[in-house]
Amino acid sequence: MGMEQLGNEIRASLPGSLERLKNYLRLPSVSAQRQAIPETVDYVVQMLEEIGGQAKVLDEWGGNPVIYGYFAAGPEGDSSKTILFYNHYDVQPAEPLEEWNSPPFEPTLADGKLFARGVADNKGDLVARLTAIQVLQNNGGLPCNIKFLIEGEEEIGSPNLEPYLRTYQDLFQADACIWEFGNKDESERISMVAGIKGMAYLELTCEGAQIDLHSSVGAYVDNAAWRLVQALASMKNEKNEILVEGFYDGIVEPDAEVRLAVKELPFDEQAIVNRYGLKRPLITTAKRIDPREAMVFHPTMTICGLESGYTGEGAKTVLPKRAKAKVDCRLVPGQDPDHILVSVERHLLRHGFDDVKVSMVNGQRAYRSDYHHPFVAHVLQTARLVYDQEPVLAPNAAGTGPMYAFGKLLNLPIVSTGVGWAGSQVHAPNESIRLDDYEQGIMHMVLMLAGFSQALKTAEMHS
Amino acid sequence: MGMEQLGNEIRASLPGSLERLKNYLRLPSVSAQRQAIPETVDYVVQMLEEIGGQAKVLDEWGGNPVIYGYFAAGPEGDSSKTILFYNHYDVQPAEPLEEWNSPPFEPTLADGKLFARGVADNKGDLVARLTAIQVLQNNGGLPCNIKFLIEGEEEIGSPNLEPYLRTYQDLFQADACIWEFGNKDESERISMVAGIKGMAYLELTCEGAQIDLHSSVGAYVDNAAWRLVQALASMKNEKNEILVEGFYDGIVEPDAEVRLAVKELPFDEQAIVNRYGLKRPLITTAKRIDPREAMVFHPTMTICGLESGYTGEGAKTVLPKRAKAKVDCRLVPGQDPDHILVSVERHLLRHGFDDVKVSMVNGQRAYRSDYHHPFVAHVLQTARLVYDQEPVLAPNAAGTGPMYAFGKLLNLPIVSTGVGWAGSQVHAPNESIRLDDYEQGIMHMVLMLAGFSQALKTAEMHS
Repeated sequence: MGMEQLGNEIRASLPGSLERLKNYLRLPSVSAQRQAIPETVDYVVQMLEEIGGQAKVLDEWGGNPVIYGYFAAGPEGDSSKTILFYNHYDVQPAEPLEEWNSPPFEPTLADGKLFARGVADNKGDLVARLTAIQVLQNNGGLPCNIKFLIEGEEEIGSPNLEPYLRTYQDLFQADACIWEFGNKDESERISMVAGIKGMAYLELTCEGAQIDLHSSVGAYVDNAAWRLVQALASMKNEKNEILVEGFYDGIVEPDAEVRLAVKELPFDEQAIVNRYGLKRPLITTAKRIDPREAMVFHPTMTICGLESGYTGEGAKTVLPKRAKAKVDCRLVPGQDPDHILVSVERHLLRHGFDDVKVSMVNGQRAYRSDYHHPFVAHVLQTARLVYDQEPVLAPNAAGTGPMYAFGKLLNLPIVSTGVGWAGSQVHAPNESIRLDDYEQGIMHMVLMLAGFSQALKTAEMHS
Repeated sequence: MGMEQLGNEIRASLPGSLERLKNYLRLPSVSAQRQAIPETVDYVVQMLEEIGGQAKVLDEWGGNPVIYGYFAAGPEGDSSKTILFYNHYDVQPAEPLEEWNSPPFEPTLADGKLFARGVADNKGDLVARLTAIQVLQNNGGLPCNIKFLIEGEEEIGSPNLEPYLRTYQDLFQADACIWEFGNKDESERISMVAGIKGMAYLELTCEGAQIDLHSSVGAYVDNAAWRLVQALASMKNEKNEILVEGFYDGIVEPDAEVRLAVKELPFDEQAIVNRYGLKRPLITTAKRIDPREAMVFHPTMTICGLESGYTGEGAKTVLPKRAKAKVDCRLVPGQDPDHILVSVERHLLRHGFDDVKVSMVNGQRAYRSDYHHPFVAHVLQTARLVYDQEPVLAPNAAGTGPMYAFGKLLNLPIVSTGVGWAGSQVHAPNESIRLDDYEQGIMHMVLMLAGFSQALKTAEMHS
């Protein structure tokens, strides 16, 4: 089947595909708020079964259920090769609600875009992949076995995923994996990654008293908010240098080829500044380092939230009993989130902040696929056929996901790609995808699946 | 008239005095909620007139009316001397209502205490003062002229008071002033003050972007929360030293006698630690300085509130577009809130925090009466006659109020004392006074008024 006919097939499938996606988006499956989980699980199972897949709901290890999906290779296909898709049915909280131009759980089409919480991260990707399967089924059948792992706790750090992976290691076994999502960048290049950063999401709390005090006692009573501010300031200075001893321990240095690949990644500083309305130059500009390297190779320490005392209008003269900070450390391969936690604990004690307690909300290791695997080349090659601009494939993303357990337990290369765009506003109000990207994403998955077995076999023959 | 006979007279006046007070307390004059203001003004005028005073309602400068009250010296009295009482007829909101054991606006007698919103702050004080006037009228007449300024917006920061004071400077002219309220401390000592601290309540805001970003971009995008934390940390270090240049400008150093008076103030560190459940030693203990001196002479810089990004449960991986802090600086005599604002602005610029903006929510100067004024000694001396324990008179309170305009425009010494106790729960549910304290407060005012002219004249003769 030629590209043009394929394009027609995909366009014909779009109305039904979007209807399926909209119904999926109407389920407010916010894992952080424990919303709508059972209904969403039912809906995902229904989607898998409607297009001829088998579905299994796994829930014996607690947490939101993990859904296994399976589509066998067609009679003409190669049942010796299997691809695994990783997706999640949960979404980020929609707050702040007042900043949405349309209700977050009422998918809204406007200006060629579909707006809804989770549409880019990553309900759109799952439905695009299912649509690609349908298109292949209607055109000669599936060229290989296809598996899905669709979990429901990605947005809260996949705290329960690993036992499922361990228990069902054989069930999920595959030759390669397509990760949850992806997007086009500011220059309209599809931006794919073969790894992710890890995370140590910490909560720092200082408690100074049992009740809020009148602020006039600030002359002699110590203040939890000041203590927390001082503790945080001791961890990272105004030059954005992380000062926690042990933080950089264990980092695996990338090889020359990977470094080179990173140097060739596109990065348009001005576009980023404009996109987010940044008020200051990038950290990397101030530090005269390559933002591409920072993105891929440098760990981070980011304050995600601060909370203490009175935050309403006007003046309330209170000395707060408690102050809290949420701090997200993005880790690179070799860093261990448990070691990060211990290092921060030690740092606080060493600097006299024994009243500032730290706990880890979410810890995940980074993962970087073998950049030289033929699957990586195949995904890149098929992307070239679909997208107008030269595709981009970074050794790892700046973002995080539970990729480490997959890569380690299932021992396979992983590439993430998807249907988002540079303005998708993932995790923010007015999240969206563009319908043109959605269509191209389906096309990429059709071509990638069609040539998957052949690409791996050819490489095996040559090795 | 001897003390014993005076005691009998006061006891005889109590039933009528309490009836008057209860009717006053039934008026829910919450200025923040604009409740019952006209009825309360009428009632205060009625109370003044019922005991032979003149009353004038001033309202041309907007806000809730200011009431002027006047009682001329009796035929035997000294009409060359005038004392001014400052009170307010408005009260704090009663919320949270569910925490009250009796309805906040239905005065309830129990266990020797009278419970109602505003009874200690400061409706009880006004009626105690009026009762003292009645007792003196029934026993030879008033020994001096007595004026009242009773405003209706103290609990919302007296935003409209100053133009009334300026316009009616001559009307309110007096030789000395008794301020709104006071209370006994934990050790049953009457605790009086001859001044208050000022305030510069600041709001610091850092805005880094137009939208919240995904925290993974922390590798190259600067973070408003980190910026604010670093800016705050540059203003006060972990030793609680305020580092803002110019912050201490203009401070009037107290003289040796005032210092000595402060050294003699009671201060029970353990009681304070226990009352609030403090987790750390007092700042003053760590710095080896006298907490009494800190309370009276040291300005403060207190974080009242911090707000940025995600503060809910669990992990949300956001790089916040904005971070805010509320900072309450308590000022001592000589400090100027406008100069504090400018100094913080300059400090931020000098330290490279041009992205952190500061504004002032509320600025008030401190006021400290001339501690050597014979009026101060007279109030203290008469208190000694009434109270069992040695009275306490601090040169100024750790708290704040609109005293500066009075002291500056009317040029008079001011002492605050009243009928509260250590458990009065001012601004909180179950506000109360004890009837014994009420009786003693009346006695103190009777003696203070009786000897007022003489004390001032004797001092004039000796000077």
